[in-house]
Amino acid sequence: MTEKTAQLSKAQAITSEVRRRIVDREWRQGDRIPDEAELAVEFGVARATVNKALQMLAEEGLLDRKRRAGTHVTVNPARKATLTIPIVREQIEGAGLEYSHRVVAQKLSPIPADVALRMSLPEGAELIHLRTVHYGDSQPFQVEDRWINPGAAPGVERIDFHRINANEWLVRNFPWLHADMAFSAENANARDARLLEARQGTALLILQRTTFNDLGAITTVRLAFHPGYQLIATP
Amino acid sequence: MTEKTAQLSKAQAITSEVRRRIVDREWRQGDRIPDEAELAVEFGVARATVNKALQMLAEEGLLDRKRRAGTHVTVNPARKATLTIPIVREQIEGAGLEYSHRVVAQKLSPIPADVALRMSLPEGAELIHLRTVHYGDSQPFQVEDRWINPGAAPGVERIDFHRINANEWLVRNFPWLHADMAFSAENANARDARLLEARQGTALLILQRTTFNDLGAITTVRLAFHPGYQLIATP
Repeated sequence: MTEKTAQLSKAQAITSEVRRRIVDREWRQGDRIPDEAELAVEFGVARATVNKALQMLAEEGLLDRKRRAGTHVTVNPARKATLTIPIVREQIEGAGLEYSHRVVAQKLSPIPADVALRMSLPEGAELIHLRTVHYGDSQPFQVEDRWINPGAAPGVERIDFHRINANEWLVRNFPWLHADMAFSAENANARDARLLEARQGTALLILQRTTFNDLGAITTVRLAFHPGYQLIATP
Repeated sequence: MTEKTAQLSKAQAITSEVRRRIVDREWRQGDRIPDEAELAVEFGVARATVNKALQMLAEEGLLDRKRRAGTHVTVNPARKATLTIPIVREQIEGAGLEYSHRVVAQKLSPIPADVALRMSLPEGAELIHLRTVHYGDSQPFQVEDRWINPGAAPGVERIDFHRINANEWLVRNFPWLHADMAFSAENANARDARLLEARQGTALLILQRTTFNDLGAITTVRLAFHPGYQLIATP
């Protein structure tokens, strides 16, 4: 282990202990906790290590740090939640259903303005445009509308996505460094309604995700889930 | 530090190093990684500590563990995302808008079947029912429909929520041990539409959250966000 890894491991042990004190209400919401120098003595570590640990807990939302006022236990502990965003095939198979997918369109097309903005690429640049429906036991589960940038994912022009699911091909070949992700609700447009076999105007949960590597935007995708779908988050 | 904390800190140091190898692509997606015994020798720790570390990474979604096939780097690294769920007042003020709230209803009422199910309470039990609209610069931002259980939050009957926001009062006085949380999309019903000043049927992003302490369900809330609202997640 490197020296940096060793410091990190000490800091993580301190975060565990501080988290335990908060959950057990030894330190209550709104309480000011001991300062860095006191904690450094108590845990027998350098003050920088305590600082690192408290910073990690502040990023998690458990502590609230202010230069003059000191460090307090955050009043609202429900500020962070974790979402699992499974591979759609695994999600469908995990529900005990048979997975299938159908590619509705795959062609090189100029990108519209909103896609250009999300991908930081010039409007009209030619990218692979792919529309896919994912099914569980032949019922539409999710509609995927995806653009893939050959500039950041070289070789994509030669792939036939009728054979391999684009999501799985991309993650196998092009790991990303940075991603943007947002959830929203939209009324199903005519195409969503047709592909999801739902009424036009039905409220759909939408996930938009754009991933980047050192060559630029790899892909941007809009996923529209079937009506009534619930995404579970764990706090 | 206790012995348990020390073991946890060693395990966490190993998770950091394994994570680094995956991000630096020394171990690539789909690769089988060395087995526990080999890693225990390399890191100079007990095999149980390596097991703990790999289990933590499997729970994060970075590793895929199968009894016979060994441990592989997960093919899709984008499986977990973190959401920040801010206090609504802080979110509105953080956007530079003036916060206000209006309590539309506050009364003791028997709970309907769906609320009883979410809270694990008998249908018809009498709880505080509260409906509130939160505004930014006088524009509706969010509609809150909340039930509060006096059995788990004693004293709630005497609070006037026109004066203090229920969310802030609850988190200050009744920290929770467990929470259920789900996102979905719904077409605005007549009440949503009236309170959000939107058209009936407009797609709304919905967050449902139920929190529990050792006395039972504290509260369940349905938050309906204004049309067009986007919730940002960080992977």
